[in-house]
Amino acid sequence: MEQTLAFVKSNENRFLEELFELLRIPSVSADTKYKPEVARAAEFIRTSLEKAGAEKVEICPTSGHPIVYGEKIIDPKLPTVIVYGHYDVQPADPVNLWTTPPFEPQVRDGKIYARGSCDDKGQVFMHIKAFESMMKTNSLPCNVRFMIEGEEEVGSSNLGAWVRENKNRLKGDVILISDTSIVANDTPSIEVGLRGLSYVQVEVTGPNRDLHSGVYGGAVSNPIQVLCDMIASMKDKENRITIPGFYDDVLELTSDERIELNKTPFNLNEYKKDLGIDEVRGETGYTTLERTGIRPTFELNGIWGGYTGEGSKTVLPSQAFAKISMRLVPHQTTDKITEIFTKHFTSIAPKGVKVKVTPHHGGEPVVTPTDSVAFKAASKAMETTFGKKPIPTRGGGSIPIVALFEKELGLKSVLMGFGLDSDLIHSPNEHYGIFNFMKGIETIPLFFKNFADMSAKG
Amino acid sequence: MEQTLAFVKSNENRFLEELFELLRIPSVSADTKYKPEVARAAEFIRTSLEKAGAEKVEICPTSGHPIVYGEKIIDPKLPTVIVYGHYDVQPADPVNLWTTPPFEPQVRDGKIYARGSCDDKGQVFMHIKAFESMMKTNSLPCNVRFMIEGEEEVGSSNLGAWVRENKNRLKGDVILISDTSIVANDTPSIEVGLRGLSYVQVEVTGPNRDLHSGVYGGAVSNPIQVLCDMIASMKDKENRITIPGFYDDVLELTSDERIELNKTPFNLNEYKKDLGIDEVRGETGYTTLERTGIRPTFELNGIWGGYTGEGSKTVLPSQAFAKISMRLVPHQTTDKITEIFTKHFTSIAPKGVKVKVTPHHGGEPVVTPTDSVAFKAASKAMETTFGKKPIPTRGGGSIPIVALFEKELGLKSVLMGFGLDSDLIHSPNEHYGIFNFMKGIETIPLFFKNFADMSAKG
Repeated sequence: MEQTLAFVKSNENRFLEELFELLRIPSVSADTKYKPEVARAAEFIRTSLEKAGAEKVEICPTSGHPIVYGEKIIDPKLPTVIVYGHYDVQPADPVNLWTTPPFEPQVRDGKIYARGSCDDKGQVFMHIKAFESMMKTNSLPCNVRFMIEGEEEVGSSNLGAWVRENKNRLKGDVILISDTSIVANDTPSIEVGLRGLSYVQVEVTGPNRDLHSGVYGGAVSNPIQVLCDMIASMKDKENRITIPGFYDDVLELTSDERIELNKTPFNLNEYKKDLGIDEVRGETGYTTLERTGIRPTFELNGIWGGYTGEGSKTVLPSQAFAKISMRLVPHQTTDKITEIFTKHFTSIAPKGVKVKVTPHHGGEPVVTPTDSVAFKAASKAMETTFGKKPIPTRGGGSIPIVALFEKELGLKSVLMGFGLDSDLIHSPNEHYGIFNFMKGIETIPLFFKNFADMSAKG
Repeated sequence: MEQTLAFVKSNENRFLEELFELLRIPSVSADTKYKPEVARAAEFIRTSLEKAGAEKVEICPTSGHPIVYGEKIIDPKLPTVIVYGHYDVQPADPVNLWTTPPFEPQVRDGKIYARGSCDDKGQVFMHIKAFESMMKTNSLPCNVRFMIEGEEEVGSSNLGAWVRENKNRLKGDVILISDTSIVANDTPSIEVGLRGLSYVQVEVTGPNRDLHSGVYGGAVSNPIQVLCDMIASMKDKENRITIPGFYDDVLELTSDERIELNKTPFNLNEYKKDLGIDEVRGETGYTTLERTGIRPTFELNGIWGGYTGEGSKTVLPSQAFAKISMRLVPHQTTDKITEIFTKHFTSIAPKGVKVKVTPHHGGEPVVTPTDSVAFKAASKAMETTFGKKPIPTRGGGSIPIVALFEKELGLKSVLMGFGLDSDLIHSPNEHYGIFNFMKGIETIPLFFKNFADMSAKG
């Protein structure tokens, strides 16, 4: 292991230069005009895996962007780690808010600024370079398979079918994913719960055309008013969601689990100061960590209707719209929540308007075990490199593919990410600490070693 | 009078051709790029008045668009009618929704399609042509002054100062305005009440930046949710506005007055069918005619915040906005209503957000007398030309200058308009019936005659 870590240290500059090459490829999966660039990124991943020592490396086409597969099976009797990650990135807009261009990586203050630096090219590349380091120092202790996709930022729509068709070459013991964050650089953590998502758009239609608010105002249902009334009614005074049955399947944590969760370092005053707010707000009876980690939510992501330009226009509009997302916790399911939302929202519509609900994407909530060999291997690896035992945390975001792997492959995941919540993923000036990048490359071989050792013992 | 009417009839084609010339000038007062066109329209009005026989015709500059003045004083001892109107028009956007170009008037099915055809060039031009007809047939029975402005569609901001500075040449007995509608072509009416207006924009700010709704959702006040909650709370279950003091100054009509008002022909089923709604909605205890005529309102004209594009974005936005207008009735005042709205809206803001209220324009409500000589003269004139006694109606819209004339000149107005609510003023495909245009030109000389006769008797 010392030899591997020495290799990592002595190759830091080269690793960074290679990562920068990858970051220079604008592999934006959401925009068809970048399709050749997405393909170029897949090719870059393929070459990197081959150079690192992977076998059977292949760019697997899908009806969307391809999935890059590669493996190194040193002994079929040894355990197998499946590494998942993605080489596609979010759009860089608004580009004018970036200090330096999004696809020209620049290091400032020890951080790599570029779209995808943290999410997820930087974290994927840690795995490739850790694998290379183990291969070059003859220290890979078990088998590994790589599955790096190009559609994570657009809902992984073709991954499910591909996984189902490739079950044979996806035999393994655990999925290892680095696409999440730690609490802080001096406070390592591993996410053990991820919320699911149900995302809908609603539309309220009143009169069949825009009306003059002077002539018709006061006598006709105003769709904006109705939409506001309906939205206001979706939460009670305790900030609990009023959709009948919404909480039916919610996994309630034991008081011990809640005590454990609330041990995560968190400073409410700093939190409020950072956001510029004088008060937090959420479901009565829960802490902020619980509200974002273990409780479902109902959030307005957008609203529009009527005149939104400068000055005034006395219009009583025909329609009003909103985008609403609900974060789900185990054991809620996207389909059921979307269904009961739709039923409830439609049922509370007053006469004089019509209501339409359009489901957007969703994702199932997951919890990953903390008593598994893989979790213990990850925890011990981080404890070694950070000098501190990592805290199990529950993330507010969603990684739908974790539920997918569990369903299709029967495999649990370990979410050993190295980003920070402050890395501005999905926003202008996304960055990733060189500290975090290198810490990942050091920690991953330790995970492999621990996992192989513990599996042998178990 | 017969001679005058004969003159009107025999000049119909010329009157229409001249009106079309005026309609071809895109005198959009809101857009500075049309400033030369607005000036050209003023010049056209000046020339038309001179040709018709007016004296002391003058284009009076203001710090905005000019006011065209002209007069014909036949005998200082006789009563004087001041005709007010405006030659500016609303913007034509969205131009692509017009069947024929907005500034290329076209007659279809007996209607003139063009921006300003009804509001207000067509109605102003009726007065100029009626005046011309009286002059050419030597039948002008009293004095007349014209005051045609170019900023009505942008709030008449310079008219007040000009009226104050020109009180000497605005001596008269009544203001005659044609800028309103009749109930139907077989149901003449005269507006006797106009609602006032208080228009505000509100802004709710939560966190200091857009947040990831997965990471922060459930724990932080969402400004869209808060805005909806606040808007929903502005009305109670009876659809009464909850701002403390909002109804304090509202003029309550006597039951006789309400009975009279509800005699206006109105078919609720047709109203609902026309709007494509299954139910009307408004303040409990009042009819639709009352809700739009004599009761104040609180209407949302626009709302926006967060992500409003295609698909989904999991943003918890920093801000949300709305445009709100309140229609006022006698004796509410714009300033007081704006003030109590602002106070109330700010006071109900929960912790965790900041609220800002920006007043836009306003206008005072008015009622015009139905027992005055001028009203009786108008009523009798319409009865003659339509063959039916006109109904006094209360309009939902606002003409702020009526209150201005009362305050500055001590003069009441008569709102003898000839449009229809279906003329699509302020919308694409604005039009004005040739029937209505000609009916106006026939009715106006009768008004002058009746007014002169009745004033002599009174």
